[in-house]
Amino acid sequence: MLELLSEHGCFGGVQRFYRHASATIGLPMRFSVFLPAQALVQPEQRLPALFYLAGLTCTEETFMIKAGAQRYAAEHGLILVAPDTSPRDTGIAGEAESWDFGVGAGFYLDATQAPWSQHWRMESYVTQELFDLVTTVLPADAQRVGIFGHSMGGHGALVLAQRHPGRFRSVSAFAPIAAPTRCPWGEKAFSRYLGTDRASWEQYDASALMARQAKAPFPRGILVDQGLADKFLADQLHPEVFEAACAAIGQPLLLRRHEGYDHGYYFISTLMENHLRHHAAQL
Amino acid sequence: MLELLSEHGCFGGVQRFYRHASATIGLPMRFSVFLPAQALVQPEQRLPALFYLAGLTCTEETFMIKAGAQRYAAEHGLILVAPDTSPRDTGIAGEAESWDFGVGAGFYLDATQAPWSQHWRMESYVTQELFDLVTTVLPADAQRVGIFGHSMGGHGALVLAQRHPGRFRSVSAFAPIAAPTRCPWGEKAFSRYLGTDRASWEQYDASALMARQAKAPFPRGILVDQGLADKFLADQLHPEVFEAACAAIGQPLLLRRHEGYDHGYYFISTLMENHLRHHAAQL
Repeated sequence: MLELLSEHGCFGGVQRFYRHASATIGLPMRFSVFLPAQALVQPEQRLPALFYLAGLTCTEETFMIKAGAQRYAAEHGLILVAPDTSPRDTGIAGEAESWDFGVGAGFYLDATQAPWSQHWRMESYVTQELFDLVTTVLPADAQRVGIFGHSMGGHGALVLAQRHPGRFRSVSAFAPIAAPTRCPWGEKAFSRYLGTDRASWEQYDASALMARQAKAPFPRGILVDQGLADKFLADQLHPEVFEAACAAIGQPLLLRRHEGYDHGYYFISTLMENHLRHHAAQL
Repeated sequence: MLELLSEHGCFGGVQRFYRHASATIGLPMRFSVFLPAQALVQPEQRLPALFYLAGLTCTEETFMIKAGAQRYAAEHGLILVAPDTSPRDTGIAGEAESWDFGVGAGFYLDATQAPWSQHWRMESYVTQELFDLVTTVLPADAQRVGIFGHSMGGHGALVLAQRHPGRFRSVSAFAPIAAPTRCPWGEKAFSRYLGTDRASWEQYDASALMARQAKAPFPRGILVDQGLADKFLADQLHPEVFEAACAAIGQPLLLRRHEGYDHGYYFISTLMENHLRHHAAQL
């Protein structure tokens, strides 16, 4: 069911890379897992888990290599799970022509438009198939799963947490694409994956979803960090739109703006301890 | 003199990547520097610095991306410096044919054999040109510089610290090639860079150098960590040879063997806090 590709000792636990035949995607998929020492010592125990969704061009490796999260996950006894960012080697013409669409750019949605709709089903993959795997085959507690991510993955975290109430108990993001219906990355991806009907796009826009919430979906608060030296901030990210939507419906949001920090993993790793503490407190 | 290629906010300080025309190498070289907040707030202040030498195939980026050291350097107020692992684009035929010789495999020595002797002068580059740059143009204190590294870079740290008494005040290593005259990596590199006279090889063998010391060169102790699931341990690394040499001349050595840990950065990042504490205490 799960093929263990590699395992590495890490902060008293193990860093693993898996491959499996995904029924949802219809192709092999890879993901990574960090299991803290608790999972090795008491394998029957269910532990809280935290899904990380990476950004454009990344893979299931990026977070585990660059973010420095394992140290804090070890301290909190948290399992970390990171899927790949899209299907790969699908055979669809042009799948890898752009760095911001297709391979490495699944946008954590289920595409409705051919030819993408056959394999580009990252929403179902993450929220159902991968969620089920890590809470059955691996020792994650299905009642205590959080989600976070970066950029395209920050969009994914804020959207999937809202679209699947009760599935993810805590949510945070680094530099998320917070209003994808209003930015070039979102327009490019949504028009191809979802078609020309902009109403369908709003189902995958964290700010539009939040604006329509009847009450705060995460009353214990959402954490978002944004660097002010991020070259994508002005055109692509729009955290102020998400901020306004949260304020309008009473969703507590801690949106922190950091001078001198850019869009990369030096920024993410600096704030990682805070994010893991945020999730550990809610899980 | 120094061309700043990029700068990233990181743990309250800045992560920088530089390029410069190296007189020693005769070509452009790149290196990376982490400056803690102290260097930004009080730029006239000289801070302790720690050189990291990376392993085969790595670049000046590897350590800064994967090792998670900036957090601890920020806590201790340490500057981190990481050079590239060899000259690049030298035009020498075959320079990139092997992953364990030539490009990415400078072995931190000054080659004596043509055609390598023209550019492969990493020992002089690190201990003189780069050392001088970071202690003059950058705010490192020349009296408080330590050195550490991984694998080929662990070899480099243990060798350069011994060959340049007083230059590096503290030394440690992760999974070093501790007796390169006795392993395939060392034999391949030394025979080409240094020629067939094995007596010349011993000048770059940490264990052989230690065995000839009249007294302990680092009386406050050397720290070495080694994973026992390291696939290179049996054939390439030989920490027990270095251990015996230290014991014979009375050099204090803390050599820790870690079950379940391999040769990669998941191992290194796990022990990084310890190493930075070791250096900070001696600098």
